[in-house]
Amino acid sequence: MCAHSERAWVLVNASPDILHQLQANPVLQPARAARDTALCGIVLVDGQIDHTTGLFMLRESTRALPIWCTDEAFADLTQGNPIFGVLGHYCGVERHALRADGSPFSVAGAEGIEWRALAVSSKPAPYSPHREAPQPGDNVALVLKDRASGRTLVYAPGLGAMEEHVWRAMQQADCVLVDGTFWSDEEMISLGLSKKRARDIGHLPQSGPGGMLEWLERLPAQVRRILIHINNTNPILDEDSVERAVLAAHRIEVARDGLEVEL
Amino acid sequence: MCAHSERAWVLVNASPDILHQLQANPVLQPARAARDTALCGIVLVDGQIDHTTGLFMLRESTRALPIWCTDEAFADLTQGNPIFGVLGHYCGVERHALRADGSPFSVAGAEGIEWRALAVSSKPAPYSPHREAPQPGDNVALVLKDRASGRTLVYAPGLGAMEEHVWRAMQQADCVLVDGTFWSDEEMISLGLSKKRARDIGHLPQSGPGGMLEWLERLPAQVRRILIHINNTNPILDEDSVERAVLAAHRIEVARDGLEVEL
Repeated sequence: MCAHSERAWVLVNASPDILHQLQANPVLQPARAARDTALCGIVLVDGQIDHTTGLFMLRESTRALPIWCTDEAFADLTQGNPIFGVLGHYCGVERHALRADGSPFSVAGAEGIEWRALAVSSKPAPYSPHREAPQPGDNVALVLKDRASGRTLVYAPGLGAMEEHVWRAMQQADCVLVDGTFWSDEEMISLGLSKKRARDIGHLPQSGPGGMLEWLERLPAQVRRILIHINNTNPILDEDSVERAVLAAHRIEVARDGLEVEL
Repeated sequence: MCAHSERAWVLVNASPDILHQLQANPVLQPARAARDTALCGIVLVDGQIDHTTGLFMLRESTRALPIWCTDEAFADLTQGNPIFGVLGHYCGVERHALRADGSPFSVAGAEGIEWRALAVSSKPAPYSPHREAPQPGDNVALVLKDRASGRTLVYAPGLGAMEEHVWRAMQQADCVLVDGTFWSDEEMISLGLSKKRARDIGHLPQSGPGGMLEWLERLPAQVRRILIHINNTNPILDEDSVERAVLAAHRIEVARDGLEVEL
């Protein structure tokens, strides 16, 4: 995801197809100089492969990459999968500590956005040095506020359980982009792809008691609800599925590549 | 690059866009089972980011990835950039030692192809534990022979200097896919992108005395010559450029995504 303030863009997580994303969005390539991008900072919600591998593709940056991440994600990215160490042989990393306590921060160059990070109940990456002893900063949700309008967005691609502080932020938001990984808790088991339930690996499923649909149903009517981070096993990817119809009936959208959300 | 024997495919280097490559080539997705691919093995020519990052994208494989690489590349991928260690938390790696001495080997499942690896003069990755003390196995060229027809192909994406044993293999080949990174030795310097010459970073430029064009000109007439691994600074990417016309006059082709070579 990218968020922008005037012409400065902040990348949220660097997915492996980041080069394709930059190519597909001319606005991200102002071409003020060779190898220029419009990115003035990168905010990571965790240290997972799908959120960090794209950093390798940005290694020819002419300046150290300004990256915000928690101490826990920093440990993942300097020990278990030392991407930051590898980048040190190229452009380098200008690391900013992200506190998962909800305190506001800004990304230099895009001051029109106020950011807050909230610890969420999920899991660190399998290669995390603390995989078996999860910490509050392993995964965060982000709350973005447009300082001019005061409108806010909650971004939470991994949400294993709904906690009070996250729920409060969602109720106050104008738009929520939340964990749409799995439709059902036993999705991966029933397909024979894993022995673990959705909740076991840090994702609240959409269906069933206490699932994401029940939570989204309780949000104030004006909150726009969009599912993101959708696994390729999730039946909602089929636009003709019963599950997709259920979402539509609940006024829940499904994100797609290139989706633009205006607050 | 992929090479195939009957319906089994061998991936040569796992570039960051490997998922796009799999999606774009239905033949690589036989779909005999969930998360199936037609890949029966992966051969790496070195431990560079652009040749190995795609391994992360194959981590949900239902079997350990069978990977051939030299001891030197193995050191890069277990120490400087421990991708193999990270994969150990997912599907794992079934590593096969690649000897850079030209001895023949096969990839199980694709026995119709005989492979040989030749040490080439180039450079290991910046994060290699022996970056400053290059070893013969840091980078290899591959010689593939179709056992049925006896026809051969040489694949050398990084070639810093033409050495006798590589030159011999190229002269005997039916097709050569060789280092097309830079047009001129000072290309990166003149664009202000680096202080290093092409040869300093392990790539023989196409133009100039002793350059790739001079070598390719001396190959037997029937050898098909294709430039690969072309940097985005190389003027040959512009089909209307003078440099591209020079290549055409020399009967040298420029590779493109999706190119199929039949031996």
